[in-house]
Amino acid sequence: MPNIKIPGFQFAAVVSGIKKSGKKDLTIIYSERPAVAAALFTTNRIKAAPVLVGMKRMRRREIQAVVVASGNANACTGVRGIRDAETMCSEAARYLRIDRRLVVPSSTGLIGVPLPMEKVRRGIRAACASLSPEGFSQAANAILTTDRFAKIASVSCRLGGKKVTVAGMVKGAGMIAPNMATMLAYVLTDAAVAADCLNAILSRAAEATFNSVTVDGDTSTNDTALFLANGAAGNPPVRRGSAEERILARAAQEVMKRLALLLVEDGEGSTKVVEIRVEGARSRGDARKIARTVADSKLVKTAFFGEDPNYGRIMAAVGYAAVAVAPEKINVFFDRVAVVKRGVGVNANQRTAARVLGRPSFCVRIQLNQGRASASVWTSDLSHEYVRINSAYRT
Amino acid sequence: MPNIKIPGFQFAAVVSGIKKSGKKDLTIIYSERPAVAAALFTTNRIKAAPVLVGMKRMRRREIQAVVVASGNANACTGVRGIRDAETMCSEAARYLRIDRRLVVPSSTGLIGVPLPMEKVRRGIRAACASLSPEGFSQAANAILTTDRFAKIASVSCRLGGKKVTVAGMVKGAGMIAPNMATMLAYVLTDAAVAADCLNAILSRAAEATFNSVTVDGDTSTNDTALFLANGAAGNPPVRRGSAEERILARAAQEVMKRLALLLVEDGEGSTKVVEIRVEGARSRGDARKIARTVADSKLVKTAFFGEDPNYGRIMAAVGYAAVAVAPEKINVFFDRVAVVKRGVGVNANQRTAARVLGRPSFCVRIQLNQGRASASVWTSDLSHEYVRINSAYRT
Repeated sequence: MPNIKIPGFQFAAVVSGIKKSGKKDLTIIYSERPAVAAALFTTNRIKAAPVLVGMKRMRRREIQAVVVASGNANACTGVRGIRDAETMCSEAARYLRIDRRLVVPSSTGLIGVPLPMEKVRRGIRAACASLSPEGFSQAANAILTTDRFAKIASVSCRLGGKKVTVAGMVKGAGMIAPNMATMLAYVLTDAAVAADCLNAILSRAAEATFNSVTVDGDTSTNDTALFLANGAAGNPPVRRGSAEERILARAAQEVMKRLALLLVEDGEGSTKVVEIRVEGARSRGDARKIARTVADSKLVKTAFFGEDPNYGRIMAAVGYAAVAVAPEKINVFFDRVAVVKRGVGVNANQRTAARVLGRPSFCVRIQLNQGRASASVWTSDLSHEYVRINSAYRT
Repeated sequence: MPNIKIPGFQFAAVVSGIKKSGKKDLTIIYSERPAVAAALFTTNRIKAAPVLVGMKRMRRREIQAVVVASGNANACTGVRGIRDAETMCSEAARYLRIDRRLVVPSSTGLIGVPLPMEKVRRGIRAACASLSPEGFSQAANAILTTDRFAKIASVSCRLGGKKVTVAGMVKGAGMIAPNMATMLAYVLTDAAVAADCLNAILSRAAEATFNSVTVDGDTSTNDTALFLANGAAGNPPVRRGSAEERILARAAQEVMKRLALLLVEDGEGSTKVVEIRVEGARSRGDARKIARTVADSKLVKTAFFGEDPNYGRIMAAVGYAAVAVAPEKINVFFDRVAVVKRGVGVNANQRTAARVLGRPSFCVRIQLNQGRASASVWTSDLSHEYVRINSAYRT
């Protein structure tokens, strides 16, 4: 994994003892100066304590450090959980000598178990003492739980005559569903950006990236996407409506798209990354609803795993997506192979269709022929390994 | 399996060659006189040809025979599919010497493949020649596809001084979701019943039975529930609002409830039947929405399979059900064991909670403490066997 450096950011990751495996589990992302911040939090009505604390912090739109405890979600932990999340911030602030309101807490892992705060405190202290501009990869590894690999991406662009970097790391393999910030994601840039502009870029980029992937259809209690811009590049701050905004937005979207696809590739038990593309819908909302319904169908996902070109399950899922469709107008393709034409199964192409499903990545294109809107959702397959991981997660 | 007889009904099942296994696959249910009929059909927007034909038939509310082809869904088969479904009716009508508009077709199995009509014709002819009042069990077996066992139920009651029987058979193991008639179900009675009364009884009974079970969350293109009342018992026809209506409704509900639970027990790969009960909701709709979201969560279902008392996944699913909940008011129990109290995980009870999950059947009780409405949905677990069955269905 190539190491990534972003001017003005430092990282540290240590073993605090939250994870039973003895792996690194306490991570700090630190900006040498307060960074302009934008965030998206889970739409789940049951939010973990760090999400509730993070939402409060974001009122000021300025963040200097993130403390991530991995292996424990600090969710369904009541008043104590809130206190523990606040303590994570105040302890980090103490060692970093900054205002605790500039610190956002994150947690990911088991729900319902209180954080082992003595370990967490010691971990924070040790992490604050070992910050380094070289620590990006370490941090990207330490935030993981059931993930198989670290997921990072980086893009450079020029803003106002200065070279800037946009880089991100993301964590997530289960409880992934396209509904606002479905994972822990930290996107960092040394660009100077106005707060409202950063916010707009994050929201827009999330729709076609983090909010368009699904592994299991379960939206987590802890999902958080943070975008920090610390201005170390020295460019004039990027404003809304400017040409620079478009350049930065493109870079951010590119980073987030790569991270989102890595999430699906690393989805629990995933052996394939499948794009479900719905075209010719009456509205983008309709297209997304159908794409997501197909992408979350257990029958469709097991057929992908079995490399069975079972278009019938796809048609059934299209039909129960609660969108008015005209069955006799629908075409379905696996990459370029037609399997349904005008609502009728094409069975002559079964072998070539099965070969498409043997690919590590392919596209299911569903043409509704009712309008001009389209949308894609990326999904994984549902394998034996998925069941193994999730039935044996704790026991 | 005890055989079931319902006065005035005859049954036949033969091998026509639709199923590659060589098992019986062509079934006829025949009433010696035209029966008053009520039906529920799939809410899927993509409906199989026999469903479209069946919906047309039901305008007259009188049915004398049902022809079921199992192994082939006759869905996504276009104009040809409609013609084939009509031919099934006219062929049966010819041999039974009745009006073809008194015949309802059903199909279940693979989507997208045209019916092998020569085989089907021969099968219908042979079946019509072998009708018998003793054939109920045979029929209940022949309508199956991936099911592991035949699912039947029977109840007797007295109406207007006459003994009447209500008996049913149901087919389904996959594509089961609680959304209007999620399977093939045939409920038969020798009672005399007014058409509007039969309709009301079926609709009401379906809500807490067929529409409250889920295996995979996928709603099929072929789901049909038919309720036939042929009046052979000689009771005065049951009218709406009468005491007899309540008695018959209770019997029908009992039969349908038993059939619905058998569907979950036979759910693909199912090793457990779990009731998800939501109490204290603001409305029954809210309670159902939450119960169904929990019941369909892949993470919750794999935890059931692993007998892991992972209440966190249940809380997460409650939270993303798109219903406003107050996390700090929620209690969750596995049978009588509390695992969440006022939104906070109870970890002292983990061992006893795990023992509950080892039972073949248990209840997850979710108390929202926001109102007085409640609802239950019954679900299966998500096992290795589920993935094996569905990834290897055709190949």
